[in-house]
This record gives sequence, C-alpha cells and structure tokens, in this order.
Amino acid sequence: MTRKTILALLLAAIPLVASAQNIRVFPEHWWAGMQTNQLQLILRGSDSLFGKGTVSTAYPGVEIRKVTAFSNGRYLAVDITLDKGVQPGAVPLMHVRNGRKTTVYWPVKARKGMPGKDFARGISGADLIYLLMPDRFANGDPSNDRVPGMRDQSLDRSDYYARHGGDFAGVIRHLDYLRELGVTALWMTPVMENDMPNRTEHGYAITDHYRIDARYGGNEGYKRLRDSLQARGMKLVQDAVYNHTGTYHVIVSDLPEQDWLNQWPSFTGTSAREQALFDPYASANDKKRMTDGWFVKEMPDWNQRNPYVANFITQNAIWYVEEFGVDAIRLDTYMYNDLAFANACNVALLREYPSISLFGEVMVQHSPNQAFFAENHIATAFKSNLPAVLDFTALFNGIFPALAQEPGWYTGIVHLYNAMAHDFLYRQPEKNVILLDNHDLPRFFTRMEGNVARQKMAYTWLLTARGIPQMYYGSEVLMAGDTKPDGLVRLDFPGGWPGDAKNAFSGEGLTAAEKSMQDLVKKLGTYRKTSPALQSGKFMQYTPQDGLYIYFRYTDGQTVMCAMNTTKAPRRVDIPYLSERTGGFTKARNVIDGVEHSLQDAIVIPAQEMWVLELK
Amino acid sequence: MTRKTILALLLAAIPLVASAQNIRVFPEHWWAGMQTNQLQLILRGSDSLFGKGTVSTAYPGVEIRKVTAFSNGRYLAVDITLDKGVQPGAVPLMHVRNGRKTTVYWPVKARKGMPGKDFARGISGADLIYLLMPDRFANGDPSNDRVPGMRDQSLDRSDYYARHGGDFAGVIRHLDYLRELGVTALWMTPVMENDMPNRTEHGYAITDHYRIDARYGGNEGYKRLRDSLQARGMKLVQDAVYNHTGTYHVIVSDLPEQDWLNQWPSFTGTSAREQALFDPYASANDKKRMTDGWFVKEMPDWNQRNPYVANFITQNAIWYVEEFGVDAIRLDTYMYNDLAFANACNVALLREYPSISLFGEVMVQHSPNQAFFAENHIATAFKSNLPAVLDFTALFNGIFPALAQEPGWYTGIVHLYNAMAHDFLYRQPEKNVILLDNHDLPRFFTRMEGNVARQKMAYTWLLTARGIPQMYYGSEVLMAGDTKPDGLVRLDFPGGWPGDAKNAFSGEGLTAAEKSMQDLVKKLGTYRKTSPALQSGKFMQYTPQDGLYIYFRYTDGQTVMCAMNTTKAPRRVDIPYLSERTGGFTKARNVIDGVEHSLQDAIVIPAQEMWVLELK
Repeated sequence: MTRKTILALLLAAIPLVASAQNIRVFPEHWWAGMQTNQLQLILRGSDSLFGKGTVSTAYPGVEIRKVTAFSNGRYLAVDITLDKGVQPGAVPLMHVRNGRKTTVYWPVKARKGMPGKDFARGISGADLIYLLMPDRFANGDPSNDRVPGMRDQSLDRSDYYARHGGDFAGVIRHLDYLRELGVTALWMTPVMENDMPNRTEHGYAITDHYRIDARYGGNEGYKRLRDSLQARGMKLVQDAVYNHTGTYHVIVSDLPEQDWLNQWPSFTGTSAREQALFDPYASANDKKRMTDGWFVKEMPDWNQRNPYVANFITQNAIWYVEEFGVDAIRLDTYMYNDLAFANACNVALLREYPSISLFGEVMVQHSPNQAFFAENHIATAFKSNLPAVLDFTALFNGIFPALAQEPGWYTGIVHLYNAMAHDFLYRQPEKNVILLDNHDLPRFFTRMEGNVARQKMAYTWLLTARGIPQMYYGSEVLMAGDTKPDGLVRLDFPGGWPGDAKNAFSGEGLTAAEKSMQDLVKKLGTYRKTSPALQSGKFMQYTPQDGLYIYFRYTDGQTVMCAMNTTKAPRRVDIPYLSERTGGFTKARNVIDGVEHSLQDAIVIPAQEMWVLELK
Repeated sequence: MTRKTILALLLAAIPLVASAQNIRVFPEHWWAGMQTNQLQLILRGSDSLFGKGTVSTAYPGVEIRKVTAFSNGRYLAVDITLDKGVQPGAVPLMHVRNGRKTTVYWPVKARKGMPGKDFARGISGADLIYLLMPDRFANGDPSNDRVPGMRDQSLDRSDYYARHGGDFAGVIRHLDYLRELGVTALWMTPVMENDMPNRTEHGYAITDHYRIDARYGGNEGYKRLRDSLQARGMKLVQDAVYNHTGTYHVIVSDLPEQDWLNQWPSFTGTSAREQALFDPYASANDKKRMTDGWFVKEMPDWNQRNPYVANFITQNAIWYVEEFGVDAIRLDTYMYNDLAFANACNVALLREYPSISLFGEVMVQHSPNQAFFAENHIATAFKSNLPAVLDFTALFNGIFPALAQEPGWYTGIVHLYNAMAHDFLYRQPEKNVILLDNHDLPRFFTRMEGNVARQKMAYTWLLTARGIPQMYYGSEVLMAGDTKPDGLVRLDFPGGWPGDAKNAFSGEGLTAAEKSMQDLVKKLGTYRKTSPALQSGKFMQYTPQDGLYIYFRYTDGQTVMCAMNTTKAPRRVDIPYLSERTGGFTKARNVIDGVEHSLQDAIVIPAQEMWVLELK
C-alpha cells in the first residue's frame, strides 16, 4: 500500500464534521501545488455563536492569516495560505469557543492530472460543441428521477416545466452517437444542485455550489461522464453562473451579511439594457439598475463587489475545473455581472489554467454592444478581458436575416457578410462561439418556418464558418419549437427514453428529411475532424453578389470554398473574380456528395443550396 | 492710391493668356503667406507639343523646383515653392518651346482675412445648418436661368430633373428668413460648374473646379452670398466632391495620363459595400471594386493614388476655403475615396485652417461601419483622421425607428437610445452632424407618413440632441416626398419663385400645420441661440421606460431636460429616478409654451409629444 493510497483511505474515512459544531467548509477541499494558494474558506457552524470562536490549525505548510466574523454569527471567513510544498492530507481546522473545541478536517488533495494536457485544455475552431439540457436528453438511470428530500418532486414528461428524468447516465450511453456526429465537446446547461420547488429543468438557480444535482447523478456521476468523454477524446464545457443564484441556496437562505446580495427596497429587476455600461452618456442610476437589478425574482443577485462573495465565486470556479476536469467555461448572463469582478475572476482562472477557454453569454442585438464585453479593439474606460463570446449578433444580424429575408440591397445575405466584417472590433474573433439556437431561443428550424433547405444551409454555414460551432441538441433531426413559452424549445430528445416512438439514435421513426439533416451534420462534422482549413484555417469572404455568398477557409495546405446561394434560382460562381483564393487550383471536390468539378467549367450552385468545395 | 490698389488693378488688367500658347493654370491663383507654399501647378497649353517646352520664372520668392511632362502633350506639372516672404503680384511663368515664348501671369494675391476669425471658423453644436439645393430654393436672378453655351439648356419647373432657375441671389434675398428660423450655417449642394448635358440639378458632376456655376451667379455671386452670410453672423459650409467628377470635366475630357482616372476594361461601378475596407477577411478584389469602381457612369472616378491628382484635388480644396471664405466642408461620398488620400487631404486642410470643420458623408447602416471612417476609438489597420461624419446611423437606426415603430423591447425608441450609446466608438461624437433628411433620402415627414406630431418630435430631437443639427430645406413647412425617384425630394421651396401659390417666407398659403411646424423650428432655433446647454452642454440620457425617453443637456449654469413620449398615452416623468440631473432644481419651464411646472408635482408628457424643459 502506497503512502498515497493510505492517505486516500484516511481522507475517505474522516467525516467533515467532527464534534459539537456541525461545520461546513467552502470550498469543500483544495489541492496541493496549485497556483491559487491564497484561499478564503467560509466556515458555517451550527449555532449563532459560532462566529465568536477562534480558528487555528497545526498542519505543515498551512498558515491561517486572518479570521473574520460576520453579523450573522454562524459564519467565519478564514484566510489561509497553502505553501508551495504543502503535502496532501486532512488539515485540521480547530474551532474554539468558550473552551469548546470542534475540529473539522479539511482535505488538501493531490492533483490528478496536468492542466492543459489532461483537462482545462480549451476549445478551438477544431471543436464542435453540442449543447444539451441534461434533464431532456436521455434517461439512463430511472432510479434518480425523483430524489427524496428535494423540493421539486415533479416527474412528468407531458409537462415541459416538470422533471423528465434525463441524467448523466443517459448522456454517457449516447456519447458515441455524438462522437459520430462530429461532436468533440459537450456543454450541458448547469448541472449544479437546483433544489428549488419548481422550474428546475434549466439549472440556473443554483442552491449548492459544491453539489452536482443528484437527479443527474451527483458529483460522482459527473466525474463518470467526464471520464467517458475523456475516453473518447471529447471535452467538457461547463456552464457557470456567477451573477445570481437560487433563493434556496444554502448561504443565501441564511446570509452572513445582507450585503452579500444586491439589496433593493423591493424587488427590482435588472433593466437588461446593457447600453448603460458603455454609453458615454449613461446615468449612475441606469448603470446600477443594469448590474445590481435581479435577473428574476427567484434568482438573488450576488453582490460581487463584496470581496467575500467575489472570493467565494472565484474559488468555486477554479474548484470545478480541478475537481471535474472542465476544459472550457460558458459564462452565463455575463453582462449582468459586476464587470470588474468578472475580469478578476477570469484572471484567476487563466492564471491557474492558461489553456482553458472562457466564453460569455452576451445576448444583445448589436455588434459594438457585444464586442464591449469581450477583448476588443475599442478603447473604452472599462476593458473586458473576456476572450470570447457566444456570437449572438452573428445569429441575430447574420445568419438569421441571411436566410429569413429575400436577398436585396440591405436585406438577406448581406447581413451575414456584414456581421463577419464586424470582427474588426474583436481581438480574437476566431474564439467566438457561433450558434443557431439554444435553450433560450426559438429553434432555428422554426425560425426558418420548417424550411429544410434553409436549415441545411444554416448548418453548412455553422460547420464551416469562422469561430467555434455550437449545436443545440435535436436540431440535427429538425426538432422544432418557438419560445412562446420557452418550454417548447426544451423538449425531450427523441429516443432518450425507453419506448420513444421516434429514436434519433437508432434512426427508427425518423422522416426522410430528419434523416438527411442528420446525415448532413454527420458528413460535415466528420469532414471537419480531418480538415485543417476548417479547423484552424484563415477566413476570406467576398461581397455577396445577387444573393450568392462565397467564402474560403484556407491553410497553406488546404483551401475550402463555401458557396451559399440564398436565391430561388441557380447562381454561377465567378471563379476569375475569386482568383486570390482559387489561383493555382484546377478542380473542386464537393465535400457532401464527392462530385469533382473542373474550375474551368461553370460551377453553378442550385437555388437554396450551400456547397462546400475542397479545391485541388 | 496705395500700392495694394495699384497691384489689384494691374492684376485685373493682365490677361491670363499672353501670346502664342493659350495656357490655363490650375490652381488659378494662390496667396502670399500661406502655410501651403509648396504647390504643383498644372499648366494646360493649346497644342499637343506644349509639354515638350520648358517653364521658368523670374519673380522674387518663387522657385520652380521641377517640371514634369505627361504623355498627353498638352500638360505640364510645375512644382513651385513660394517663399514665406513672397509679395503679392503677377508671377510670370515663361513657357519656351523651339524658341517660341509664351508668358502666363499667375497671380499671387494678398490674403483677405484671418482664418479661424474671418473664415474657416468651423461649426459646432452651437450652429444650425440649413441644407438647400441652390437650383431649388429661390430664383433671385432670372437672367442666369439659362446660360448660353452651357450644355444643359433645360428650364422647366414642371420637370424635377430640368433646371428650375434657383440661384445665389435667391438665397441672399431670403437669408433673413433663415436667420429668423435659427439657422447659423448654410450648406448648399455643390455649386461648382456642372456643364453636363442633363441632371445638373444636384451639382455632383463637376466639370471645372475653378468655376462656380454661372447659373447660380458664378464666382462673384458666390462671394456676394458669402458676404451676405458674413454680414448676418452666419457661416458657409461647402460641399466638396473629391471622389469623382463629371465626364465633361475640362481635364477628364483630355486626360494628361490615363491613370488620372481609375480605369476599367468596361464600366465598373463601385460595389458600394464599405465592409471591404475594414473587414479583416476582405479580398483584394472587393477592396479595389469598392474604392476604384465608379460611383455612376457619368462621374469618372479620380485615381487619388496618382500624386498629381491628389495634389490637384487638395490644392483646390484649400483654394476654395481661401477664395470664398468657407467655414466648414461637407465631404461627399467620403468612403469611396482612396482613404489614404482622404487622410492626407484632411491633414493639408487642417494644417492651413486648424479651426475649419470637416464632416464626411458615410451613408451606411451600422455604427461600426460609420465610425470606421471617422476618428474613432477602434484600433484598426487604417485609422481615419476625419473629425466627424453626417450621422446617418443615428437617423437610420435611431430617430427613424424610434418614431416609426411602436415602442417594444427591441423596437421603437430604444433604437435612438442605443444609437447614442454607440458614441463610445467615436473620439468626437459631438462633432457629428445629425439629420432627418437630405437630397438623397425620403423626406422625414414622408417616412412618418405625414404624421405632424412625429415630425415635431423629430425636430425637437434634432434641435436639442448631441451633435450639430442639419435641416433640409422645406422640412420646416412639412415638404413631403419619397426618393422614388429622388427628384421628388428635390422640389422647389414654396415662395422661391414669383407667383408661387404658397409662400413659406411670407406664410401666405401655408396650412395651419405647416405654420405650426415652422413656428416650432423658429422657437427652438431661437432658443438654441442663447442656450449654453444646447450649444455646448454635456449630454446624459436615461434608458427609455415604457416608450418614454428622457435626456439632458447641461452645463454648470443651465440644465435642459428633454422628454419624448413615443407612446399613444400620457407618461409621467419619474423625477426621483432622474435625481442625478434634477437634484437642486424645483421648477421646469417648458421652452415651447413657456408654462412653468413644479418638479414636486407630476410632470406628465402627453402622448406623441416631446417637451423641452429648462430647469430652475
């Protein structure tokens, strides 16, 4: 038995709570050898005099720098330093009050892998992200569908706001399906405990930052999912929620200080008008309302200017990456955060994990607004250090109008061309995550009014354009739905539950159109995996002419030409005009159907089709 | 008789052409003591061997540095330096070829005023610009309606593309009308000679850069207009066209070299897609097509990369300012110019006239696109030095949808709020010129479908918002018209011609609505003249709430609150929320009707009204 194994056994055997006081520590544990070695532990005791006590330790390499009490007597903040050479083990934290001693053993673990190599690897244009809602994808373990003691005991697949029973085991069972689609990275809506009375399907009302929701499989299930991804060379993207939490959160329901939340005389929602944050003419009240207003009534707004809150969230963000081997983080409701806090939290994560990817949800209508929240080329008073965003403006003002409107001087495809040109605002536009739909938006297929040809053009764009493509579960088999209400875009994936009449995994019950859509994604998803041009190539786009939009992805070794004909008539490609990219090539192989065309002959793109041509 | 007077007489007596060769010199004259003292004269002789000759001079303080011939033998470029101390006089330029001498006397004049004080004063938010088409405003001199020898001999007021006879004399006659409206600066569509066969009403097809169109009153008439403005404390804004010229231009019809124009195998129009100029993914062909394509077939595109062309245009720009006492320049079709040339030309103008204002026409749909062409806060490969633009995006994406759409989450007034917030892209947004309509756009009143209340709100915005307001002639009396075709927005000003049934100058024949619109403009135009807050105050805007948009203009001494209710119901102003600006004030005087309100009482803005309130 090695020393490590003994330690592990010991750790497993030591209960977190040792005696008189029932003490919980946040974060629940840490690791030896981390860059982040100055921590602020939040201890919560079981009575209101806990905070009057002292805390000490006697563990080599662990120093307590400061202990702070709060007006709510059940908490203490303990600032500690872990020496570089600290050894893994159970650090005794001794709490003494009126001579009564309680010792809690706080684990310092050994790190399990090398960040940047085994996890925290980041994502890039070589990846294809699949976003799913874990309650809605597949039910692999019916035993966790209802968890006794949790507030939401609904379980009703006919109600899109009740629990449906999906879980990590279901996802694991179908990872090969995703891999064969071309998916390389999995993003799930938040998996942390949401012990709320209802509407727990989305996961954004976290009630415990250190518990993965038991209905999905809990902390251990999440690790199993992670290992299953790892075994397939796939990555894990985690959804992080800094801005707000759930009303039943373990700390929120018993705040250390009132100012841990942004408090208002009566409920005050955020204005959701991001302009106040960059508008040179903004009022102080509008800024405050935007940042400190609550997202919704059920999700209290953290006061991130409170340094204890800031530390709590930041340490938790790092803890997730280390604990579950996260590769990239999708930052929820990014623009509602205190932006100085968000910057600091990004710095902390990137200091610990230089290769990790961070991309924020900034759901706005205009590109300057979106670019403001990312690393950009604009000189502004506040400079965001967020490397990338979910590219909503490329959706709202790009691919959506490109395919929904007839092409005209200011309508249709020119919007997509213009949206890409706006990349001059960003420092690293290639890191932006492009999308067609998600759990908050109408299904793109529904936006296209069920037009399969347009859905196919959109997906061909998604899988060949600049940036990191993100799919939404089920769109590959033409799942439809509008956001009136949003439950309609959160329906079950067909085949995820025993007895489903339609099964997108096996193909059973799929219509010809659904099957052909799935085939297209698989074809392009697979092609992407071996195409340097699509994975990391440069991008060149041409001004659309008569509704025909042509762009190239290219490296020194490979050139891929993409031609989208948004009109209702065939369009001939003007090869000589494209000479900057087509020069030196004589043939073009259609990646979808394999047909080879001579560049001397007319290349005609049929109406409402998009071709992907590898030049030879 | 002073020495100056003798000189002036001498100059007047000396014919430009002296003997055998018929020589024309561009620029036609210059001034002693200019910063710009390195000139490149273009001499055009009367035969094709002129270019084989030599050019010399013997005039103290004038040095010929270089003489260059072109493949078209009728031209010579003569690079000269005027010493700082050069005296006004007639500089003999002696052309010799095969022993045959021709001397042309090229005037160096004394400067007439002090730039920045007497002219080239620039414009600011304290100004109100009135844009008119000189053929369409008022006919003050019927004798110049048709000018013998000119190609366009049309004269037909019933045809909106024929000449109508408007002229400088007509403008002069009605300057007091403009002054009483609150106008402080006059901008006319180009007044340079347009000796084209037809469509000469707009003025953008210049055929001689040193002749003001005789149908308006010629060079002397333009000076009279300038003096009449000066006498009323008003300023002159000149429309400058660098990008292109008219096919019948004196030089274009007999080019020194083919490469003075951007030549194409066959007519090739500009793509008019400005994106190619900032798109990080643009192709070389798209950039070339945008910049070198011709604006229209009748307007050849100058090759501004040709240094002779660049010098020709730049010297002419300076010449206009000095010759006619221009205060500000509106730069036509700015984004179609070679941008490096445009920057250099701006530098030359600002070096000579540091106080002059330059603002460009960049008629685009999106604020990043527009900001790219101005001095901005964006780090781009090409940096424009243009101080300001005509703010089309504030029109297209601001005031127009604000008043044309019902207010909703993403519709209506929020557009105007958002457009102003985009000022974070500009270095000097307060210099941008805001507008509601012009000679290329549908009349705003027509965009509003004839809704007088909305037209009034729009004008109240125009005259109180940040930036420099620009009106379009006749909008103050509800002139209507769409651009299908554009002739419909170029109709005659009522009362500008003898016998007009309706007369906006006298008020005769105006409807009550027209009169009340004119009164509103006059009221606000007059108020502006004494309001520091509107002239140079800071700007603060509040996030619109339920269709009510509130902004402030303020200085240390004055605060003006503007409240626009775009809804169909009255809206109460939430004074406490505005405390950052209303604090310390107790009363508000409505600038339009003079009624005083207590800030303790409810201030209710009626449906579809905009109030301007000076706080007390």
